[in-house]
Amino acid sequence: MARRLLKELERSYGFDEVAIVPGTVTINPEMTSTQMSIGEFAFESPVLASAMDGSVSPRFAALMHEMGGLGVLNGEGLYSRYADPYSVLEEIISMPQAEVTEYLQQAYSAPVQEHLIGERVQEIKQSGSVAAIAFTPAATKRYSPLAVEAGADIIVVQSTVTTARHFSNSDRGLIFSEMISALKVPVVVGNCVSYDVATELMETGIDAVLVGVGPGAACTTREVTGVGVPQVTATLECAAARADYYQRTGRYVSIITDGGIRTGGDLCKAIASGADGVMLGTPFAQAAEAPGRGYNWGMANAHPELPRGTRISVGTKGTLQQLMHGPSNVTNGTQNLVGALRVAMGMCGAYTVPDFHKAEMVIAPAIKTEGKHYQMQA
Amino acid sequence: MARRLLKELERSYGFDEVAIVPGTVTINPEMTSTQMSIGEFAFESPVLASAMDGSVSPRFAALMHEMGGLGVLNGEGLYSRYADPYSVLEEIISMPQAEVTEYLQQAYSAPVQEHLIGERVQEIKQSGSVAAIAFTPAATKRYSPLAVEAGADIIVVQSTVTTARHFSNSDRGLIFSEMISALKVPVVVGNCVSYDVATELMETGIDAVLVGVGPGAACTTREVTGVGVPQVTATLECAAARADYYQRTGRYVSIITDGGIRTGGDLCKAIASGADGVMLGTPFAQAAEAPGRGYNWGMANAHPELPRGTRISVGTKGTLQQLMHGPSNVTNGTQNLVGALRVAMGMCGAYTVPDFHKAEMVIAPAIKTEGKHYQMQA
Amino acid sequence: MARRLLKELERSYGFDEVAIVPGTVTINPEMTSTQMSIGEFAFESPVLASAMDGSVSPRFAALMHEMGGLGVLNGEGLYSRYADPYSVLEEIISMPQAEVTEYLQQAYSAPVQEHLIGERVQEIKQSGSVAAIAFTPAATKRYSPLAVEAGADIIVVQSTVTTARHFSNSDRGLIFSEMISALKVPVVVGNCVSYDVATELMETGIDAVLVGVGPGAACTTREVTGVGVPQVTATLECAAARADYYQRTGRYVSIITDGGIRTGGDLCKAIASGADGVMLGTPFAQAAEAPGRGYNWGMANAHPELPRGTRISVGTKGTLQQLMHGPSNVTNGTQNLVGALRVAMGMCGAYTVPDFHKAEMVIAPAIKTEGKHYQMQA
Amino acid sequence: MARRLLKELERSYGFDEVAIVPGTVTINPEMTSTQMSIGEFAFESPVLASAMDGSVSPRFAALMHEMGGLGVLNGEGLYSRYADPYSVLEEIISMPQAEVTEYLQQAYSAPVQEHLIGERVQEIKQSGSVAAIAFTPAATKRYSPLAVEAGADIIVVQSTVTTARHFSNSDRGLIFSEMISALKVPVVVGNCVSYDVATELMETGIDAVLVGVGPGAACTTREVTGVGVPQVTATLECAAARADYYQRTGRYVSIITDGGIRTGGDLCKAIASGADGVMLGTPFAQAAEAPGRGYNWGMANAHPELPRGTRISVGTKGTLQQLMHGPSNVTNGTQNLVGALRVAMGMCGAYTVPDFHKAEMVIAPAIKTEGKHYQMQA
Repeated sequence: MARRLLKELERSYGFDEVAIVPGTVTINPEMTSTQMSIGEFAFESPVLASAMDGSVSPRFAALMHEMGGLGVLNGEGLYSRYADPYSVLEEIISMPQAEVTEYLQQAYSAPVQEHLIGERVQEIKQSGSVAAIAFTPAATKRYSPLAVEAGADIIVVQSTVTTARHFSNSDRGLIFSEMISALKVPVVVGNCVSYDVATELMETGIDAVLVGVGPGAACTTREVTGVGVPQVTATLECAAARADYYQRTGRYVSIITDGGIRTGGDLCKAIASGADGVMLGTPFAQAAEAPGRGYNWGMANAHPELPRGTRISVGTKGTLQQLMHGPSNVTNGTQNLVGALRVAMGMCGAYTVPDFHKAEMVIAPAIKTEGKHYQMQA
Repeated sequence: MARRLLKELERSYGFDEVAIVPGTVTINPEMTSTQMSIGEFAFESPVLASAMDGSVSPRFAALMHEMGGLGVLNGEGLYSRYADPYSVLEEIISMPQAEVTEYLQQAYSAPVQEHLIGERVQEIKQSGSVAAIAFTPAATKRYSPLAVEAGADIIVVQSTVTTARHFSNSDRGLIFSEMISALKVPVVVGNCVSYDVATELMETGIDAVLVGVGPGAACTTREVTGVGVPQVTATLECAAARADYYQRTGRYVSIITDGGIRTGGDLCKAIASGADGVMLGTPFAQAAEAPGRGYNWGMANAHPELPRGTRISVGTKGTLQQLMHGPSNVTNGTQNLVGALRVAMGMCGAYTVPDFHKAEMVIAPAIKTEGKHYQMQA
Repeated sequence: MARRLLKELERSYGFDEVAIVPGTVTINPEMTSTQMSIGEFAFESPVLASAMDGSVSPRFAALMHEMGGLGVLNGEGLYSRYADPYSVLEEIISMPQAEVTEYLQQAYSAPVQEHLIGERVQEIKQSGSVAAIAFTPAATKRYSPLAVEAGADIIVVQSTVTTARHFSNSDRGLIFSEMISALKVPVVVGNCVSYDVATELMETGIDAVLVGVGPGAACTTREVTGVGVPQVTATLECAAARADYYQRTGRYVSIITDGGIRTGGDLCKAIASGADGVMLGTPFAQAAEAPGRGYNWGMANAHPELPRGTRISVGTKGTLQQLMHGPSNVTNGTQNLVGALRVAMGMCGAYTVPDFHKAEMVIAPAIKTEGKHYQMQA
Repeated sequence: MARRLLKELERSYGFDEVAIVPGTVTINPEMTSTQMSIGEFAFESPVLASAMDGSVSPRFAALMHEMGGLGVLNGEGLYSRYADPYSVLEEIISMPQAEVTEYLQQAYSAPVQEHLIGERVQEIKQSGSVAAIAFTPAATKRYSPLAVEAGADIIVVQSTVTTARHFSNSDRGLIFSEMISALKVPVVVGNCVSYDVATELMETGIDAVLVGVGPGAACTTREVTGVGVPQVTATLECAAARADYYQRTGRYVSIITDGGIRTGGDLCKAIASGADGVMLGTPFAQAAEAPGRGYNWGMANAHPELPRGTRISVGTKGTLQQLMHGPSNVTNGTQNLVGALRVAMGMCGAYTVPDFHKAEMVIAPAIKTEGKHYQMQA
C-alpha cells in the first residue's frame, strides 16, 4: 500500500537550544555600538519595556529614556482609564490574592477617557523623553491620532497575532497602510513570527516589527491554542524578511524580538538571530522603580471567553540601572543586559548590531550541568 | 567488515513537541465553524466524551448534546450490568482506597443484562440527544443490534488496538464489513495509528476512525507492552489515509483523535494535524456533572493477566459548560476547549476545520520556560 | 579557511526513545509463541536471570526453570567460595550500611573452592532444571571444565566488554574458539554492542551473545569510563550481525539483551529490536524468592582501582510468578513480563519471536505526560 | 512569496549527549599509555589543575607533579598579591557568607607584587616539579618574562575567549607570535572552541590550546552572554585543526579540553573526541589537599560590570591520590580519573592517546534511567 507524504514539520528553535560561537577576531566591549533605530529615533540601548501597567508608567518611561532605551505606555490601561491611576495601582498591589482577579476585572472595565491619552503622552514628553504608546489594533484608529496630536513620537500597534490582512464580521478593521500615511510618526506593529507576515507588514510602511507569538511551551497562547513559534526561529524568519525587503526597497525596518527573554544570554541570542532590539516585560516589572512594585498582571481586555489576566508576584530584583547597565550582583545573567550584549559582541568581533547579525550560532543542548564559573574577558 | 543496514526508525511526534504557526491572514473567532460529522450527524463542537463509566452516564450524554458534542456510553459498563447503577457508583466513589480494586473487580463481574442496553439508549434518546454506545469488538456482534433496535444513532467499536483483520483461536471474530451493512447506522471504530490500518478500516465502510494507541510514554499500554505512537504522528498518518481514501472513493470518513489531550492547545494541535474531532476521557471525568464525581477508573474487562483498572482521584475542575465553552477561570488551557479552537482557527485564518488542516506546524521544543503571559486577540 | 570533516557521530537509541507500532493484523495473545533457544535447549519464556548472588541461588535457578526461563548462577560468587553461603548472605543482608562495603570486600576475598562449583551445578540438576553457570573470561578456562563435568548444561562467559580478541600482558587469555570445541556444551558470551564484535564472537562457535555495555546514562560503566551504547541500537546492531551470519552459515545464534530492562515495555522493545531473549538483574533481586531478600550488590571481583560493589536496597516487589507471568497488581509494567510480550506480539500480529523482529518501530519522545489509562484488548 | 534561506545552525554536542563505543579488540588497562606532552615536557597523567586560587597553591602544584599531572598557578591571584597569602585564604574560608563577596573584592584589589611571581615559581621548582603559571592576555607581556626568569617551565595565557587577533582601544594588546619567540618556554593559550581560531593560535607558535567557552547551559558565560559551545563539538573542532596543522607543518600542538568535566566518563569522552589532556577546576578544589579547603571562587579580575566571583562551598570529596589514581570509594565516576581513562582505552583497544582518538563515538541520550551497576573488566 503506497504511503502518502505526511504534512511536513520543520524544526524550530528557542533560546535554550542555541548558543553563539565566538568569532575569529575579538574586540574590547567598549568598542561596540548597540544602537537601534525606529524611524528617525535612535536608541543607544536596544531594549524596550513592554506596555504593561505593572511595568511602564509615564515616570518609568522617562527612566527608560535615561537608560538609553524605550518604555512603551499601555494606551488602553489604567493610565488612560483613571485620572488617578496610582490609587488603583495601590489597590491592585495590596489586594488579597483571593479578591484580586475580580478587582482587576472591575478596574479594567472603567472606560478609556480620551483626554487622558493625551495627558499621559504630555507627561512623558515633559521629561524630555521619546514618548511611545501602544494600542490594540481595534482601538488604534480611534486613539492613535489623539496620542500623536498630544506629541507621541512612536505608535505601537500590538496584539497576540497581527497580520496585514485581518478579517472581521463586525467592522472594517484596521488598514495599516492607511493609518501609516495618516499618522506621520513611526509605527511599530506586531506580533508576528513568519517571513510572509513580516514582509506584508513591512510593505504597509511600518517602521518596526514586533516578533513573538507563544514563544515558550508554557506561554498562555501556546497552552490554550497550541499556536506559537520559538523565538530564535521566529526572529530568523522575520530578519530574513527584513533583509529581503531592504534589498528590494532600500528601506530598513527594525526587528524587535518580544517575549521569552529573561537573561543577557537570551537577549544576545535574539540579536545574533537578527533582531535590532528586544522587548521585555517581566524583567522590567521586577525593577525597583516599576509601578507594579513586584507585581505584574496581563492586559485586561482579553478575549471574553479565554483566561483573564491574573496578578503574579514577580518580586523586585534590582534597580533599573542594574538591569540595564549593571553592575550586576548576580551571576545568572539577569542583570546588566546591555553590558552583556557588549561583551558578547566583543567576543564575536562585532562593532555594530548588523555585524553581530553575522555571528555564527550552533544548536546546543539545553541540558544544564554543573559547570565552572568563568570570568569574563576584561 | 561490511555493515548491514539496520531496521529504520522514523521520528514521531507528540503534542508537546509541535506548535501551530499563525497564518498570513487572521479572522475573528466568531467567523469560524468547528463542525464535525459522523455519518449523517453533525456536531457543532467536535468533541466526544469517551465511554468510561466515571465520565458518561445517560444524563451526561444528554448534557454533552446540549454542548454541541457527543457523549459515548460504555455499552458493557455498570449501566448495562445493573438496573440501578447509581448505587454501585456510590459504592465505588465512597469505598476506601484499600478495598476499591477488589470491589471494582466484583462490580464488573456482574453480567451484562441485554435488556438494559436498550433501556439506556432510550434514556438518552428521550432527552432529544444523539445516542452513541460503545462495545468491545468481541461483544459488538451480539449487543449492537439490540442497541440499534432501541434507537441508538451511532455505534462505537473500540479496543486498545483494532485492525480490520483480527485472528483468534476461539471464535470467528468480528467482520466489520458484514456488521456495517447489517447495522445501517454510522459506526465509529478504533483505535488505530497508521495509514494502512486506517485505510483498511475505512474500506469496511465505517464512518469514523478513532486514532490513538499508547500516545504518551506514561500510558499503561506503552509502559506494559512498549506499543504506542505519539498522537501528532498518528493523526497525520490517519489523516493522510482519509485524504487518499476520499480522493479514491469520494466518501469522507472522519478522523477522531483519542488520548493524551489535556488542554485546548493539545486539541488544536490534533485538529491542525488532520483530525475532524477529538475524544477525551479524564477532562470529562473532572467535570462537575460527571457520574464519577471526581473519580475515574479504567474499563474492567481488561486482559486477565495484565493490570486491572484502579480508581484514580482526578478531582473536579469546573462545569461541563466551562470545559467546553468557557468562560475559563484558569490560564493553563484546560477550560473552554471549543473557544480555544475558534481562537486558534482565527489566528490561522481558517473558516472551517478542513481549512485548519492546512495550517502550518513546526517542531517546537517542549522545554518549559518562564514566559510572559499575553492576552488573546479580541 | 577550509574546514576538515569532523569525526562523525551516529545517533543511537535507548528504550525510552522508541515505541512499537501496532501491525496491520492482530492476533490473540494465546496464539503467540515466545520460545527462545540456546543451542539444543529451548525456553518457553525468553528471560534469563543474571548471575548476581543476590538474585540467583541454586534454588532460585530451579524456580526460574519452572517459570520457563533460565537462572544463571555466578560461578565465582559466594556459592563457589563457601560451603555454607547462606550464613554469609545472612550477614550481608543484616549488616549495618556503614560496615557492609568492608564486609563485602572480605566476603569475596575468600578463594573459590573448585569442588563447590560442581556441587552447585549438581544442586541445580537435581531439581530437574537446566543448569547454567557464569564465569569471567579470565577464570573460564580453569573453572568451566569442572562445571561441565558436574553436569552444567550451559556456560556463560561474561564481562563488561568482551571481544573475540583480548590482549593482555600477563597471560595468553581466553581463546573462545578453542574453548568451544573443548567444552561441548552451549556457550553464551558477552557483553558486546556492535555488529563487528558480535560477528567475530559468533564465528568462534558460541551459541548466544549477550548484548549491553553501559546502556543508560546512569550506568556505572558509562559514568566512570564514558563507554556505552543505548540498548535499542546495540540490539539492532547485534541482530543485524546475527542475520548476516545466519545467511552466510545457516547457524542461528541467539541474541540476548542484557541491561536496562525494567518493564514489560522495555522487554518488548528489546525483542522487537531483534533480541531472542533478555537478561535482567534487579527485577529478579526484587522477587520474593531472591536470595538477597530485597538487597542487591555488584559482583565483587571488580577492577581493583575502580568502584567496588556496594549493597543496594532494591526492595521486594512481588513473587517470581507475578514477575514472569502475572497476574500483575501494578499498572507500571514491572510485572507479568512474559504476558506483556504475548500481548505486544498479538498487537503486531506476530506468531513467533522472528515474526516480532519485523514489527515496525518509531522514535518516540520520552516526554512523560499524564495520559489516559486504557485497558488491554481481551 | 519566496522564502530566503535562514542562517544555518549546526547541531553541537556536550558530554552528556555522547558515548564511546567499545572496540573490536580489547587490551588490559595496564598496557595503555596515557602520556601527554606540552612542548618538551611529558606528563604521564594528562590532567591539569586549573589556575584558581582555591585549587592550586605552590604546594598543590608539587602534589600534582607527584601524581603525574600539572597544577597551574594563577599568576595574578593571591599568591602574587600577598607575601603571606595563607592568612588571606584563611579569611576567605572562615568569612560569613554575607560578607565574603565584599572581602573577595577587597582582597583581590591589592596589587600584584612582581617579585612574588618569581618567588612562587621558585617554590614550585624547589619541589622538583614542572612549574606552570597562568596570566590573562593583558598581563602576560609584563609578567611572563619575570616568571620565566625565575624558572617557570610553562606559561599559560588564558581568558574566557582568546583569539590570535584581539583589538582594543587602549593598548596594542598581546601579539602571541612575538611573545612566543621572546619567551623560549612552551606556551599554552586559550580558551577557544573553533577550527579557525585554534588554527590561527597554532600558527603563532604556541604548544597547546585550551578548549572550552561556555560549555554548559548553566555556565556563567553562556547565561550572561549566550556565547558558548558544548565541549565534545569544541574538542572535535580543535582536534581537527590540530590534525590539519600537523599534516601541514609536522608540528604537534596538544589540545587540552577545559571546562565541564566532572567524571571519568566526561574525561574519557574529551580524550576520545581528540583532546590530549584535560583541565579541571572544581574537582581539584574538592581535593583534601586543596588550599580552598572545600571552597572555590572565581578569579577576581572579572569584567567590572559583570558578575564578580562569589565563594561557593564545593566540599571535600577525597584525596588527590583518590581523585587521580584511586582507589575510588564512590561509583559515580568522580574519582580515579586516570584509572578510568586506562579502562576506557582498554575497552577500545587503544594503546596510546592517539589510538584512543580513533575510537568510535555515538550520540546517546542523556536520559537517566535506573540501570544495573556492572563491574569493570579485571
